[in-house]
Amino acid sequence: MSHAIRIKPASRVDLSSIPTSADGGMTKEEGKARMVELSGEINELQDLLYAAGEQSLLVVFQGMDTAGKDGAIKSVFRSVDPLGVKSWPFKVPTELELAHDFLWRVHAVTPRKGQLAIFNRSHYEDVLVVRVKELVPVKEWRARYDHINAFEKLLADSGTIILKFFLHISKDEQEERLLAREEEVEKAWKLSVGDWKERESWNAYQAAYEDALAKCSTKHAPWYVIPADRKWFRDIAVAETIIETLKSYTDAWRESLDAVGTIRKAEIDAFRSGQGES
Amino acid sequence: MSHAIRIKPASRVDLSSIPTSADGGMTKEEGKARMVELSGEINELQDLLYAAGEQSLLVVFQGMDTAGKDGAIKSVFRSVDPLGVKSWPFKVPTELELAHDFLWRVHAVTPRKGQLAIFNRSHYEDVLVVRVKELVPVKEWRARYDHINAFEKLLADSGTIILKFFLHISKDEQEERLLAREEEVEKAWKLSVGDWKERESWNAYQAAYEDALAKCSTKHAPWYVIPADRKWFRDIAVAETIIETLKSYTDAWRESLDAVGTIRKAEIDAFRSGQGES
Repeated sequence: MSHAIRIKPASRVDLSSIPTSADGGMTKEEGKARMVELSGEINELQDLLYAAGEQSLLVVFQGMDTAGKDGAIKSVFRSVDPLGVKSWPFKVPTELELAHDFLWRVHAVTPRKGQLAIFNRSHYEDVLVVRVKELVPVKEWRARYDHINAFEKLLADSGTIILKFFLHISKDEQEERLLAREEEVEKAWKLSVGDWKERESWNAYQAAYEDALAKCSTKHAPWYVIPADRKWFRDIAVAETIIETLKSYTDAWRESLDAVGTIRKAEIDAFRSGQGES
Repeated sequence: MSHAIRIKPASRVDLSSIPTSADGGMTKEEGKARMVELSGEINELQDLLYAAGEQSLLVVFQGMDTAGKDGAIKSVFRSVDPLGVKSWPFKVPTELELAHDFLWRVHAVTPRKGQLAIFNRSHYEDVLVVRVKELVPVKEWRARYDHINAFEKLLADSGTIILKFFLHISKDEQEERLLAREEEVEKAWKLSVGDWKERESWNAYQAAYEDALAKCSTKHAPWYVIPADRKWFRDIAVAETIIETLKSYTDAWRESLDAVGTIRKAEIDAFRSGQGES
């Protein structure tokens, strides 16, 4: 059982009622040890996903500034084979991207079979920052929830396993983290006036997230809320959810690998006898 | 000093005179311990490359089938932050790719500043397999060495650090590895009749590699020959070369990081005083 909170389809979401600082009854030391195990499991599962080449995995990370998207990605996926993973950051769209529909740039980098794609921010920005900053008319962003659900259904129907994580931190924790960046020289390059300005819209963002999570958590592309005030626990909750999900596919992947291996061996045997005859 | 053999620009290359089974005077156990250290160094250097965002790193892997391209990538880069790395396999070109010049698909995925791109095979296939299998007229592939050098110069002039590794195995070692794939069920999906067929052109491929290495090893984009019969030594030789190269840039990157941090802090101070006044 994962420590993440899965949002039921078509339910109301009240983020203020979901704790940000859960620890699953673990100490930090226990958590660190647990994470080493989980990391090993994720590597094995990803190797199998890659070798089988039957399905793809798309993992979406969203959260307020400093929620730990970069940190979680680094920690959960740092030991996976680089041959099988690509992470994609979605920043302010370029002029070319804006000249297309909002899903265009996202669709272009969805994972091929066997691959894991990590979205560091995603198409959800188009119902989050776009809504809060009123970058398009209300009517336009309101229509996007349906577009997103249809798009994710398309991916799922083509064999993409989709997991979406909202890293949930408190407003106080955000302040501490922003201030910490000013203290540490190595983190100073991550500082931005923009982060402090965005913070003034905290409530508007939380409301936008509540709608996105409520409207777009589906059976085939669920949203998970991750208590993220404790970094070590955040990573565990994300890793557990990925492992739990992938485990339901491994039997099928192993069968398919065996089948492919058998066919390849037969082809080689045929090639060898052909050579012998000639 | 790295254990890789750097090809001098405009020199003759005779692969048969370069040993495939060097071990640098280490035992396998010493090698494994050394690799743990090197892996940590690569991670630190890549974190710095990423944070500074001043330059990019392109690492090209080439070699005969089973030379260990996948294995070396996994081993050398398995612990780098997935946010900062993308690996790109170059297989048989698609119809769309063939409708463009041979560098088009390659150029599209060169690394942006701060990023590491790993090429698993590369634009060199267009003077290797294309030459051996006579897929284009002689005149056409002969012209490509100059095209490649001009292209790599363009990348280097834009701040891309380029390292190219030829994983050098013996013909006997290849046979052993191909047969090993038939023994192990988990490796059977990697089997291919094509590999045995390609093996019949071993000498033609070695000659094509000799030309590619001789004509395209430049100051800004050197070729390295890696003795690759011993997998553990192969990984060490690749890792050492990357580390040695990146170390010459770290002072500049640290300075640039400090400068950015100072500017960001000043911006935030200005923002705060602006808020205080209003």
